[in-house]
Amino acid sequence: MEVVDVSHVEHVAEVADCIRIGTRNSQNFELLKEVGLTNKPVMLKRGLAMTIDEWLQAAEYIAQRGNSEIILCERGIRTFEPSTRNTLDLAGMAVAQHESHLPVIVDPSHAVGKRHLVRPMALAAVAAGADAVMIDVHHDPEQALCDGPQALLPDEMATLGMELVAVAEAIGRPVNR
Amino acid sequence: MEVVDVSHVEHVAEVADCIRIGTRNSQNFELLKEVGLTNKPVMLKRGLAMTIDEWLQAAEYIAQRGNSEIILCERGIRTFEPSTRNTLDLAGMAVAQHESHLPVIVDPSHAVGKRHLVRPMALAAVAAGADAVMIDVHHDPEQALCDGPQALLPDEMATLGMELVAVAEAIGRPVNR
Amino acid sequence: MEVVDVSHVEHVAEVADCIRIGTRNSQNFELLKEVGLTNKPVMLKRGLAMTIDEWLQAAEYIAQRGNSEIILCERGIRTFEPSTRNTLDLAGMAVAQHESHLPVIVDPSHAVGKRHLVRPMALAAVAAGADAVMIDVHHDPEQALCDGPQALLPDEMATLGMELVAVAEAIGRPVNR
Amino acid sequence: MEVVDVSHVEHVAEVADCIRIGTRNSQNFELLKEVGLTNKPVMLKRGLAMTIDEWLQAAEYIAQRGNSEIILCERGIRTFEPSTRNTLDLAGMAVAQHESHLPVIVDPSHAVGKRHLVRPMALAAVAAGADAVMIDVHHDPEQALCDGPQALLPDEMATLGMELVAVAEAIGRPVNR
Repeated sequence: MEVVDVSHVEHVAEVADCIRIGTRNSQNFELLKEVGLTNKPVMLKRGLAMTIDEWLQAAEYIAQRGNSEIILCERGIRTFEPSTRNTLDLAGMAVAQHESHLPVIVDPSHAVGKRHLVRPMALAAVAAGADAVMIDVHHDPEQALCDGPQALLPDEMATLGMELVAVAEAIGRPVNR
Repeated sequence: MEVVDVSHVEHVAEVADCIRIGTRNSQNFELLKEVGLTNKPVMLKRGLAMTIDEWLQAAEYIAQRGNSEIILCERGIRTFEPSTRNTLDLAGMAVAQHESHLPVIVDPSHAVGKRHLVRPMALAAVAAGADAVMIDVHHDPEQALCDGPQALLPDEMATLGMELVAVAEAIGRPVNR
Repeated sequence: MEVVDVSHVEHVAEVADCIRIGTRNSQNFELLKEVGLTNKPVMLKRGLAMTIDEWLQAAEYIAQRGNSEIILCERGIRTFEPSTRNTLDLAGMAVAQHESHLPVIVDPSHAVGKRHLVRPMALAAVAAGADAVMIDVHHDPEQALCDGPQALLPDEMATLGMELVAVAEAIGRPVNR
Repeated sequence: MEVVDVSHVEHVAEVADCIRIGTRNSQNFELLKEVGLTNKPVMLKRGLAMTIDEWLQAAEYIAQRGNSEIILCERGIRTFEPSTRNTLDLAGMAVAQHESHLPVIVDPSHAVGKRHLVRPMALAAVAAGADAVMIDVHHDPEQALCDGPQALLPDEMATLGMELVAVAEAIGRPVNR
């Protein structure tokens, strides 16, 4: 569950399994410090113009308060290219893993913003060594309140799930089931 | 073999199997027109700040002169992120394939510029549907005249080759051998 | 005075003449809404990867709560160019003025990060029609706790001040004194 | 007059007062070397994603062949901001002047692509210390074969010219007439 203000953190930490810090709050240092005082895992999304160094420094704000259950989430950076909403930086993901030893999740749906590009980028993320992928799914995307154009149908997700498992095996990181 | 000037094209076309247009000449329109008059395949690298639309328009300069044997090559775009030399845009690759139906090769070595990132990005490229990958290899990278820091050793390449084949199979595009 | 969390706003609004929202909080929407409830002018800095449209939408969060005393502050965007800390976008400033009719201040000091570039960019800002400039000054920059390398000496500032007045007159916007 | 291929250089050098290398040929090294063999001034436009260092290195290709009559031209870099065609980098211009001691011209027309932004950016360029500005003018912009939307009318140019002179005087660099 996403927190967007310090005053929400205590309540969210009571009910959620994982606290999410969104892209636009990724350098909201007061919020980072506050979630660092909880005992729930924190997913820290990368900011649109955040370098890997800045991302790891933001994670430090959480860790320094005692919470080392941090998951990074690569979701695309802002570049000049207009054909996708953002540019998914999978090499940046690999650098972040290498330098921090933290798990990194990839969110291809928000990075590309278009349904037909979600599958190739999800597969690419796992092949590049992502620790997980996070994919938007909706049973009726045209009626979705937000992000419909990037949502997969449940059937598409099921098929993609099998392909993701096969890619994970191909690179020697079989998925435990 | 790379051509960097119109006057080289005729000779290169005689001896090479494929003519390469490099990143810094990707909008050298006189050169594009000249290679369009040959009957050799042309590999057109993407410019550092080239949109997908501009890339396909550059390919049009070649095609309009009668040469439709065009291979696009994604090799990273320039962004604010300093941890890698450039940012490999695999979603851009998928968009280029989708819009042009041309084959797209990915060059992870030049995109990242660092040996330990070549493997994950090569695997990601194939998983995202790249038609081929192009990887720098050197038997003694520290003595290489250029690009040594990104070159794989022959043994590393052999291992990676097997992984690339496995990923291609996992996504339903088995490699013919 | 800068606010970095919703809980600070009430106190800062009591004592400060102007509330500042910094670059990294420019899309902290809870904070924007909270300062919208005060009766103090708000200076909203542009985010590092914020488009003009997004900047004006962020200002809308403040205005919709009833506070229309908004000053925008252009302080540079993040690009690939490493010779300056950020790239001062003076055309973006002009677009923001034109589309919003809000006053826009320019902060050349943080944009460039280097003392010798502050003067030319401050002059450029006024020539481009900036409603004000904000410049770091320190009597002993080498001992400054932060931002010393971009701080002008008081004498340099006095000289620059006279030049800024002259440029304002040259473009037909004389400074009231 | 712009050259776009090595084979054009000799002829252009005979008839033109100045040879221009355009943005898309700014790293066409064969062309740079060829104009370096002429005795005509060369105007070298900055590439869309060219760092200042790369720009000065491109100028070196010309200088090393014996032609030191080089004028740099800043015309905007490619960023994420869509409200202007490119982002005019006036601090980059100042850095280029400082590091190279070459004159730098600014082309606000191509940088912004919109008529109403040409005046503020031309004034900003002179205030920042540009050695000259280059501005598109057309007596009937709607009928212009290209770049009409950014062209000033002759009357607008005449008025702007007087303002530019006034700004140059305000910063202590009076124009010789």
